[in-house]
Amino acid sequence: MTSDIVDGGPDGSAAVPHPAWLPTAAFAPIGRRRVAVVLPDGNDDAEVAATVRREVAAATSAHGGSVVGPDEHPDLVLVLEPTATGSGFRVVRDGDRLTVSAARPTALLHGLFHVVRLGEAAFDGPDGDEQHSPVSGLRMLNHWDNVASHPRHGQVERGYSGGSIFYADGAVRTDLSRVAAYARLLAAIGIDQVAINNVNVAAREARLLTDGLDDVARIAAVLRPYGIRTHLSVSFASPITLGGLTTSDPLDADVRTWWRDTAARVWGAVGDFGGFVVKADSEGQPGPFAYGRDHADGANMLAEAVAPYGGLIHWRAFVYNHRQDWRDRSTDRARAAFDHFAPLDGHFAENVVVQVKHGPMDFQVREPVSPLLAALPRTRVALELQVTQEYTGQQRHAVYLGPEWSEILRWQARGDGTPTVAEDVARAGGFTAVSNVGDDPYWTGHPFAQANLYAFGRLAWDPTLDPSDLLDEWVTLTFPGAPAALREAIHAILDESWLTYEQYTTPLGVGFMVRPGHHYGPDVDGYEYTPWGTYHFADRDGVGVDRSSATGTGYAGQYPEPWRDVYESAESCPDELLLFFHHVPYTHVLHSGTTVIQHIYDTHFAGVERVERMVEAWESVAHLTDDDLTARVRERLAEQLRSAVEWRDQVNTYFWRKSGIADAHGRVIH
Amino acid sequence: MTSDIVDGGPDGSAAVPHPAWLPTAAFAPIGRRRVAVVLPDGNDDAEVAATVRREVAAATSAHGGSVVGPDEHPDLVLVLEPTATGSGFRVVRDGDRLTVSAARPTALLHGLFHVVRLGEAAFDGPDGDEQHSPVSGLRMLNHWDNVASHPRHGQVERGYSGGSIFYADGAVRTDLSRVAAYARLLAAIGIDQVAINNVNVAAREARLLTDGLDDVARIAAVLRPYGIRTHLSVSFASPITLGGLTTSDPLDADVRTWWRDTAARVWGAVGDFGGFVVKADSEGQPGPFAYGRDHADGANMLAEAVAPYGGLIHWRAFVYNHRQDWRDRSTDRARAAFDHFAPLDGHFAENVVVQVKHGPMDFQVREPVSPLLAALPRTRVALELQVTQEYTGQQRHAVYLGPEWSEILRWQARGDGTPTVAEDVARAGGFTAVSNVGDDPYWTGHPFAQANLYAFGRLAWDPTLDPSDLLDEWVTLTFPGAPAALREAIHAILDESWLTYEQYTTPLGVGFMVRPGHHYGPDVDGYEYTPWGTYHFADRDGVGVDRSSATGTGYAGQYPEPWRDVYESAESCPDELLLFFHHVPYTHVLHSGTTVIQHIYDTHFAGVERVERMVEAWESVAHLTDDDLTARVRERLAEQLRSAVEWRDQVNTYFWRKSGIADAHGRVIH
Repeated sequence: MTSDIVDGGPDGSAAVPHPAWLPTAAFAPIGRRRVAVVLPDGNDDAEVAATVRREVAAATSAHGGSVVGPDEHPDLVLVLEPTATGSGFRVVRDGDRLTVSAARPTALLHGLFHVVRLGEAAFDGPDGDEQHSPVSGLRMLNHWDNVASHPRHGQVERGYSGGSIFYADGAVRTDLSRVAAYARLLAAIGIDQVAINNVNVAAREARLLTDGLDDVARIAAVLRPYGIRTHLSVSFASPITLGGLTTSDPLDADVRTWWRDTAARVWGAVGDFGGFVVKADSEGQPGPFAYGRDHADGANMLAEAVAPYGGLIHWRAFVYNHRQDWRDRSTDRARAAFDHFAPLDGHFAENVVVQVKHGPMDFQVREPVSPLLAALPRTRVALELQVTQEYTGQQRHAVYLGPEWSEILRWQARGDGTPTVAEDVARAGGFTAVSNVGDDPYWTGHPFAQANLYAFGRLAWDPTLDPSDLLDEWVTLTFPGAPAALREAIHAILDESWLTYEQYTTPLGVGFMVRPGHHYGPDVDGYEYTPWGTYHFADRDGVGVDRSSATGTGYAGQYPEPWRDVYESAESCPDELLLFFHHVPYTHVLHSGTTVIQHIYDTHFAGVERVERMVEAWESVAHLTDDDLTARVRERLAEQLRSAVEWRDQVNTYFWRKSGIADAHGRVIH
Repeated sequence: MTSDIVDGGPDGSAAVPHPAWLPTAAFAPIGRRRVAVVLPDGNDDAEVAATVRREVAAATSAHGGSVVGPDEHPDLVLVLEPTATGSGFRVVRDGDRLTVSAARPTALLHGLFHVVRLGEAAFDGPDGDEQHSPVSGLRMLNHWDNVASHPRHGQVERGYSGGSIFYADGAVRTDLSRVAAYARLLAAIGIDQVAINNVNVAAREARLLTDGLDDVARIAAVLRPYGIRTHLSVSFASPITLGGLTTSDPLDADVRTWWRDTAARVWGAVGDFGGFVVKADSEGQPGPFAYGRDHADGANMLAEAVAPYGGLIHWRAFVYNHRQDWRDRSTDRARAAFDHFAPLDGHFAENVVVQVKHGPMDFQVREPVSPLLAALPRTRVALELQVTQEYTGQQRHAVYLGPEWSEILRWQARGDGTPTVAEDVARAGGFTAVSNVGDDPYWTGHPFAQANLYAFGRLAWDPTLDPSDLLDEWVTLTFPGAPAALREAIHAILDESWLTYEQYTTPLGVGFMVRPGHHYGPDVDGYEYTPWGTYHFADRDGVGVDRSSATGTGYAGQYPEPWRDVYESAESCPDELLLFFHHVPYTHVLHSGTTVIQHIYDTHFAGVERVERMVEAWESVAHLTDDDLTARVRERLAEQLRSAVEWRDQVNTYFWRKSGIADAHGRVIH
């Protein structure tokens, strides 16, 4: 079989990228029917309404149906009812007629894609009346894309999918058709906000805020028809670097004026602009600390500037000392976000959203849920996830992150029966994640990494969805009409791939052990003697970080009960987080009944075996899809297996050399 | 005091770089005398002869002396005697007259600088008649300079002194005055050959050989008046990449023709061109292996092309498998050069010089001398040293390498009373080294790193010179008229600095333990699980590489007696190389009487203390020199101390965690 991807132009982008979860075939159930689109004149968001019309026209044109009037016996009616209430859409099935209605065009578009997702089933079931609303109005993607290619990070920081869809050759792309296709994919999973540049704001990128506004407006114009608002990441030092002031002190009157004037120009250029994302006082980015101000001072000053336009300030809580002394065991990076932000609860302006990474460290394959998420009851909080697989295989490894995110979203910070993380953040904040797309023909490097972007959008809409079900949704949409064997194989490859990755990489929550800088592949001591605060403290007797309150850094004490007690003791701490919270001997016996050292050996052998089964699963069905896709997945799985073996051998050898304890099963450890 | 360095133009180069060992004051003993220069008309190398005249004119003009005729009672006569024999110069002191004579202008220029070096003492001593000749006619510097700045290595690979003096902005510099000043410094230490581009030949640099010949001729024209011949590093794949052929097989007729034609064009452009340097089949560079040919096939084909012009092929023996599997303990990178080249002895053409690194690995602070140097009796061999301090502090650390090189040069491969390495290579080959200069105002980043370039040139002329004496020579010339306290402090800082560096870095010859890629600063396991073949195999019981013939890789067996036996046994192996040759328990007792683990602790504490004394020494005299120099040295020494502490703590902690053996003196190990 050949692919429907067409090789692209000289910039390496595909002329026709992979359709992902919106192949033409997915529109057949709608497209072969009679569809009425009822849009009152003069509604807001007319461009989104036009998108609904265009989608229906394209679907019916492709599949032989027709666009009809509401009185012409339509099978499907899409109707905008400006007087309705609610942020979602309503689906009513009444005899032969399916009616999707919404108060706003964007919700109607979401409703249309809901029907696409259901396929024939949308039309087949019993009569009914359902309201579908997202739990939060903040479902956002952050792009770490650079306008000018960074000497070390390239066009997209932590990007594993080629170049940026927004930028090339140091400028915003002339041809933004990939951005339009991306916006359509996002609309289909309910994303409604996008920040278009890297949170590490370098000189060229900073200027998007001022002399780059025409370019920002061009991008916003492409996102707008899909109900997506554009945001910028901005540098806190902009008043100095762009405004020519001598300070960016948030309490300085000139600084406040500069930001107010700047906001006026931004919203003048993009009337529905969303707001600013700010990484302040973090990993070398400027911030309010330089002036003896706190993060509330910094965020609120910006919030004041954007408030007249309904703008938001997305203020990242990823603040820690990245020039730590590895000799100093009292400083614990895991504590930092809580220590900085928990005391500021209630101090932030109404239009500030504090954006908190899911764990206290940095998107590791396994971390405890950040205690900060439960420590800001009087603050709007957004959960930050990372769709781009920085520490989870960089889209060379098939790792489906839906189950990890689901675990985080369902976690109850105050114990059974108390609100979940999802409920906590949905209350006034929302969900954000770092995107994983680029100008790669498959969007995401590994074709299967599309599933992560898909799952993030769907979970941000409804965090109670089952990640395994979402995987099936994605497979069914992306491989329409595929034989069951192919769908089942892809499901099998991805379903537990997160746990597989955990098995062959860092054990028991200890994290890192990656090659410094690019973060790919094993290097057990790679960060052990660095200033980054990411240590495992392995010696000849044991391994792990003592974060107890009794004898360690006290991080466990940042949790409310019952978790504070659970994590405090090595006896009650869950196995998978043991080394995150405790330094234990290699002979410590886990709840699973095995010792720590034997667990390390066992999981690393098992992880590689599971990757071998993934390879076998793909080979058994690879002939059922097109050649390009087959080849791409095969090449990625081969690299995943090679890398898993490397992880297994380096980790096992490292701990064998240190512990001197042999594998109970006598397997080869080099 | 203020510096005589003048800040430079927009390209960051100093308009007037530091005079290094040729300050105007050094010419006073000559310059205030009556000097006659006697040059017969029509001699070869007229440009060099003109340099002799120019130097004398400048010196007498600066210091009030005069240029006189040979019959006008000169104090100093410089006379070219084309009928004389010998490659050096003759110095005759007869009453009040000093006469320097030579058969060739370049040797006369060397004689002039000899008098500069001696200063007043040249004129003061008793009558005498001395012949000074270099032990070898090959005293060469290799530049690893790139024309186009490399994305990772920058303008100069392993360069720690700013940009290239030859290239800027992707082209040969328009202003080559720095190259002229450099050539003058080299002539003063006897260097007579320079290769002007990186042995890792990238696309832009490859083209120097063809459409860049005008530029090469411009550089050669600047080097020529100082008696220095220009060489190029070339890519073995040039027939393909530049010639459009489909092969670079050395036995292919078209390939041979292409190289012959190319050589004709090169010598057509630069009549006194020196030859080609080739890094083949090494670290990804192309070579004859691709065609099933050996290195003699490759080198001899090039030799044939350049022979008509008296050209040389400098063929590097740095060939090893850089994609080794760390799990495979039978492969030993240390063996590689010998294994590849020793069997080819006698197979190389007469105008091929095989260029052999001083040790079997890669310019570590301590390695055994390469056994290959003693294994090629029927081959012209050049010893390759590294003046640029890649693994010895990168010119941020003050490390005087003269003592290391002297040890290597004096080493007797077949035991006491047999020829030294210097004698072996001087027989038909010579001495080459990687240069350490750039467009830094001090030439070498660390001002004291000038001493290494100085010592290399002097040792290449006469390898029996005492490195401590050479240090005094350099200090005296470079700081003319300085108070004794300043000269003594600089001598004290540098004299044993090589051993100091060894103390605080990798112990007992084990090598590496540096951060991968840039090679600066400690990372004990940094290369332990990589494909580079550079391992220490530390586990909880011991450390080191077993290279014995009895139980290890057999590398020790590559040495002739007596070293084969000396290195074979841990009992007879010298302490400083113990871990290079043997894997021993931490409790192994050294000849020094201490255990390996205690030696590691002791030397690392001692090394830092010695750097502290270096800092104190400088602070005690820093006011005696100019402010710029004071500040530059102070900043470098501060970094050296910081880095030495980091090395001490990481190495000590690493081995403490692994061995569990406490420091006998109870000092702080983190």
